Amino acid sequence: MTTDAPARPLTRFSLNQRTCAHWPLADAIAGCAAAGVPAIGLWREPVAEVGLDTAASLVADAGLRVSSLCRGGFFTGGNTHADNVAALDEAAALGADVLVLVPGGLPEGSRDIAGARALIEDGIAALVGPARERGVKLAIEPMHPMFAADRGAVSTLGQALDMAERHDETVGVVVDTFHLWWDPDVLAQIARAGRRILSYQVSDWITPLPADSLLSRGLPGDGHIDFGPITAAVAAAGYSGDVEVEVFNADVWARPGAEVLAEVAARHVELVVPHL
Amino acid sequence: MTTDAPARPLTRFSLNQRTCAHWPLADAIAGCAAAGVPAIGLWREPVAEVGLDTAASLVADAGLRVSSLCRGGFFTGGNTHADNVAALDEAAALGADVLVLVPGGLPEGSRDIAGARALIEDGIAALVGPARERGVKLAIEPMHPMFAADRGAVSTLGQALDMAERHDETVGVVVDTFHLWWDPDVLAQIARAGRRILSYQVSDWITPLPADSLLSRGLPGDGHIDFGPITAAVAAAGYSGDVEVEVFNADVWARPGAEVLAEVAARHVELVVPHL
Repeated sequence: MTTDAPARPLTRFSLNQRTCAHWPLADAIAGCAAAGVPAIGLWREPVAEVGLDTAASLVADAGLRVSSLCRGGFFTGGNTHADNVAALDEAAALGADVLVLVPGGLPEGSRDIAGARALIEDGIAALVGPARERGVKLAIEPMHPMFAADRGAVSTLGQALDMAERHDETVGVVVDTFHLWWDPDVLAQIARAGRRILSYQVSDWITPLPADSLLSRGLPGDGHIDFGPITAAVAAAGYSGDVEVEVFNADVWARPGAEVLAEVAARHVELVVPHL
Repeated sequence: MTTDAPARPLTRFSLNQRTCAHWPLADAIAGCAAAGVPAIGLWREPVAEVGLDTAASLVADAGLRVSSLCRGGFFTGGNTHADNVAALDEAAALGADVLVLVPGGLPEGSRDIAGARALIEDGIAALVGPARERGVKLAIEPMHPMFAADRGAVSTLGQALDMAERHDETVGVVVDTFHLWWDPDVLAQIARAGRRILSYQVSDWITPLPADSLLSRGLPGDGHIDFGPITAAVAAAGYSGDVEVEVFNADVWARPGAEVLAEVAARHVELVVPHL
């Protein structure tokens, strides 16, 4: 429960930069600062484009928090362990407390989902030491089951917590409304998660599902998700970090970044802040 | 475990007629009989097109079982109770032991998924008496979470069983590989289901997900699902009924019905029969 809302309603708001995928990083950082947005969620690829040191200076000079770095993981074939350790180095350099882990789907040619999940658990276990050394936490992202084959075979918050709880609090979870809203057990699992919640991300589920399922998210308020109960559960679990708006949507990406930022900030104030 | 496979490998095979959506009902029935396929899963709309009595005569004269009738349900706005009782009458007239219930998604304009689920439970409860009177069982179909908003808000087998177990064995569940394969708990829930399994339907999960998510199923073997563990679990739970192949896919629909039937029967023999 924040005590300063609504006087300072953007206190815990963060723009995940993929919401404005075509906004250059320097412009997005300047845009957040100009709009009074205190935090930004960064992605490795656009950070690499400007250079890690430059990116770190830009966010520091703008006085922004880096709410998370996306993304490590892909334990079933996309990333090597060294790639993921490099991602931890980047998170530390950027001042991000959290590296988001997209688990990865089935290995190429495999139908063994239990085996994929075992690979994911092994990959996480190998990262715990390097993460602890760098002071960065690992946030497992359970993903919508429609991504189980090709992107993330961790499909429920409960399953992500089963994996996280094998370790100390270096390992936690992302609660993302788009991925989890349908789960009949989601509120109970959020309560169970408690301090393991390392990131709270919001976007909406829209219908009809857009043709490209990877770009099928809606701005909060444009779809079917009730943000009240999930947000209240996240707050009740003790989460006091930033709330990232993360929307992958080609129509949103086609709009000017500053315009999108203003709109998602307004949605945050309307739909999320009353429940924090 | 069937003792007559592979000598009579199609003993428990059923063609769900939506796999060959453009095959006229009389032709599909004749095609099944000619191919030695002993059962067919029917849909209300094509049955209504030829007339209920005609459809019942066609399947009886061909000596086919009707493994299920699709579909009642839509308790959150699409169907009235009277519609669903009519579906039960049709199932009884066709000699189908099972009416498949597609639960329905969020009511128009609603974001209350818990409320939608309560409407579904109420709708099922109201149908138990009429189903029992007609000797037809009600099979709740848990649907892939990507359909939670607009088609079926029962999202896991565990949730469907929670609903079914409030009633006697008039109420059970559909186990459909496409909807459930991703669930980390699916094998345990199949074991729990036991005699509540009223229908076993197979189709595959293919990637990239086709643009129309409703038509995104693949022929068994074309995608990412391992049919062995799920089929073995269904058999171990005591299910001795038909195995329906149910594929909604525009490319499959464009092919001649008899050709598709031959192919799915071969896939059944290859991928399902060894595990029954």
